[in-house]
Amino acid sequence: MEQYTSVRSPSNRTRNLTHVSPVEVSLQAALEALADPIRRRIVRELAAVPDWTRPCGTFSHLPVAKSTLSHHFSVLRNVGLLEQRDEGARRLNRLRRPEFDERFPGLLGLVVEEDYETET
Amino acid sequence: MEQYTSVRSPSNRTRNLTHVSPVEVSLQAALEALADPIRRRIVRELAAVPDWTRPCGTFSHLPVAKSTLSHHFSVLRNVGLLEQRDEGARRLNRLRRPEFDERFPGLLGLVVEEDYETET
Repeated sequence: MEQYTSVRSPSNRTRNLTHVSPVEVSLQAALEALADPIRRRIVRELAAVPDWTRPCGTFSHLPVAKSTLSHHFSVLRNVGLLEQRDEGARRLNRLRRPEFDERFPGLLGLVVEEDYETET
Repeated sequence: MEQYTSVRSPSNRTRNLTHVSPVEVSLQAALEALADPIRRRIVRELAAVPDWTRPCGTFSHLPVAKSTLSHHFSVLRNVGLLEQRDEGARRLNRLRRPEFDERFPGLLGLVVEEDYETET
């Protein structure tokens, strides 16, 4: 669940982030967002840790350029899979699993349980 | 379930069709196949009728060229969603729903229950 206790008010940088609720998202957009192995890996890694504990900087092991990674985060925000907020210099992440599960039952489960060996 | 009772032995044409079982299919391939509104519409239409009752010729109302439609059928066969067989001059279709549901629980349900208004 969400943990806001130790989080300060949003900075200007966070306020400029676009967030979309899963209820506004089409199945087309959700499938397109998840039809990318790097985005599914981000989702899986976020599903494995508590909300708001993974800063964006901790995804630098993924085999893509930093600008590409930013694009992937943006795509995930725009289909209601990712919530981001800044805390000091760090941008923290939350997988919006309960909301997304309610909108698309079962879909996120397939991604989280995907075998790593099937990745490209 | 499958109904083979009134079906003659496969013609050469049918034998040349490539079929892939859903157990061999990656989530990547399944998501890519379903991230197309026309393919999802084919799936929905097949889910609404008994197995082997819709010939390919009955999909000509879809707003794509005949060659594109053939490509979509091929993609669906290659991710284990579609079984096809020839009966005389007609190519009949079966949605492989039980097998696909076992491989990717919930995914086909999202497609079948998708609101038509969300189509592009």
